[in-house]
Amino acid sequence: MLIKDIGEQGLLTILQKFCPAEIVGDDCAVIPTNPHKSLAITTDMLVDGVHFSDRTTGPYYAGWRAAAANLSDLAAMGAIPLAVTVALAVAADTAVDWVEEFYRGMTACLEVYHTPIAGGDVVRSSVVTVAITAFGEVECDRTIRRSNARSSGWAIVATGVHGASRAGLELLLNPEFGQNLEKGDRTSLILAHQRPKPRLDVLPVIWEILGCEGEFCIAGMDSSDGLADAIIQVCRASGVGAKVDRQKIPISPILRELVSPETALDWALYGGEDFELVLFLPMDHAELLVEKIGNGAAIVGITTENTDIWLTDSSGIYPDIVLKLDRGFQHF
Amino acid sequence: MLIKDIGEQGLLTILQKFCPAEIVGDDCAVIPTNPHKSLAITTDMLVDGVHFSDRTTGPYYAGWRAAAANLSDLAAMGAIPLAVTVALAVAADTAVDWVEEFYRGMTACLEVYHTPIAGGDVVRSSVVTVAITAFGEVECDRTIRRSNARSSGWAIVATGVHGASRAGLELLLNPEFGQNLEKGDRTSLILAHQRPKPRLDVLPVIWEILGCEGEFCIAGMDSSDGLADAIIQVCRASGVGAKVDRQKIPISPILRELVSPETALDWALYGGEDFELVLFLPMDHAELLVEKIGNGAAIVGITTENTDIWLTDSSGIYPDIVLKLDRGFQHF
Repeated sequence: MLIKDIGEQGLLTILQKFCPAEIVGDDCAVIPTNPHKSLAITTDMLVDGVHFSDRTTGPYYAGWRAAAANLSDLAAMGAIPLAVTVALAVAADTAVDWVEEFYRGMTACLEVYHTPIAGGDVVRSSVVTVAITAFGEVECDRTIRRSNARSSGWAIVATGVHGASRAGLELLLNPEFGQNLEKGDRTSLILAHQRPKPRLDVLPVIWEILGCEGEFCIAGMDSSDGLADAIIQVCRASGVGAKVDRQKIPISPILRELVSPETALDWALYGGEDFELVLFLPMDHAELLVEKIGNGAAIVGITTENTDIWLTDSSGIYPDIVLKLDRGFQHF
Repeated sequence: MLIKDIGEQGLLTILQKFCPAEIVGDDCAVIPTNPHKSLAITTDMLVDGVHFSDRTTGPYYAGWRAAAANLSDLAAMGAIPLAVTVALAVAADTAVDWVEEFYRGMTACLEVYHTPIAGGDVVRSSVVTVAITAFGEVECDRTIRRSNARSSGWAIVATGVHGASRAGLELLLNPEFGQNLEKGDRTSLILAHQRPKPRLDVLPVIWEILGCEGEFCIAGMDSSDGLADAIIQVCRASGVGAKVDRQKIPISPILRELVSPETALDWALYGGEDFELVLFLPMDHAELLVEKIGNGAAIVGITTENTDIWLTDSSGIYPDIVLKLDRGFQHF
């Protein structure tokens, strides 16, 4: 039996048997290291031609995106980054410039968040491959897990606009597309794809609003695989349902001008790689959070007891439909 | 300019510019997390056909060896393992059995040392590639660094026999070799190669001997790249020299019977992958340590003020020669 016979899900099911269930299942593994703190760890492997390509993203931005994706996983757990390690496989005929630019992009992103590269490994392979492991610290009672959402009318918050990264990718792949965009707007969408920003800046705002006393009432993950995926994963892990209002999903005005409302919503829900946080928390806290974050942050829905997840329309134009995962990217 | 034009050392020189010098340069990166503890981190990337091959080591033992190599790096820093993460790239036509056996081997080794796999990543690639990152904790004043050795007649300790892993590899590669060995002896050499044991068991002995008070007088690393490499790396990092007595290097009796004394010494010094610790510490502590560890542990030399590293011969047969990294005396 080959990997292609069982697919990515089949393989993951097999491999999860080798991991303790209580450690995995979130954006990071969380390992308590003392009574007050835990270590949050996340690993990404990137393969040339699969996860990056010089066609859309030169090595500098491939490096930036790799670092940003890992830091975003830490942010999604409520963890402050400590460092990353980088394992790199290169071919004999890989350009030295490519490698240096990749590291320049990676460190440019990491430096914004005061995160050093704490070594790694360099090996030879016919396929350029990068594995980044990021680790951070989280105070135990401030861990943001997928499984902590409540069904009692908690708000679902997106910390910023969605769909811009997908639009930027389209502009890079398809030069015919978006010819009428102003140069600044075009650049802003392309940078949303090439230079995403992990939302570590949101953490202190959360801590300020939720305080240090009592239970830390929040759940969430990042929207790296799309806003729909994040909402559905948190609902499933928490055993709650949701009503998400399509009118409330934050979409940048540039994107609204560029494509039809249907495409804009599709890219916001399924485009992925916006690297925002999708947070579930009590409504009063959510309102404060959205106000303090600003810049497109919005309450997009509420949790429900019934475990169905609905995409509703407060404007009354579209009928309610079930929100589905079905644009999930199958790796095999 | 391509990677092949600058070689591995050239590439490492470039990449080290991106890492803070105070964090790298040992078997693990060490990051202080509180006044009393540090996090030790190590990453290895393994590529099919380069680092493992079904010819000598099926997937089970490839997994065991990968886990052992990472745990050995933690042991070399004096760190107790917390967890590992595993990033895996597989091809569509990789056998599911291969992946499961690799994970079985990895977890078999990890379980001996109570170390969970805390998740990871699974991606698609044409070349099977595994990146393992291991995390451990070390009390700050117990960190074993390469740079702490003193020139005042400290002893150099090898925690066990060397050369057995290289002999096991030869038996696997060359069926004509070692036909006269007894089956048990043959198996023991092959297992030294396939199922090496990281010397985490040595750490409590070190702590007992060195105590908790005052300065923690020890330096060291593991012998994964050979005993000669370990001695030379520690001497260079500490700015000391050494005299290593070829008669004191611990070599298993089976290996002494199997090959000439010259080949046995060559394999012990340069074979690599024995995954013992090579420790530099004051003579009185070293004598206690060797006695308590037993099983081939030996004082193989002493440090000197002069930074030359000599291979001497207390039996008086061979002249003193400079100990080199590059097999300067291959098979004499």
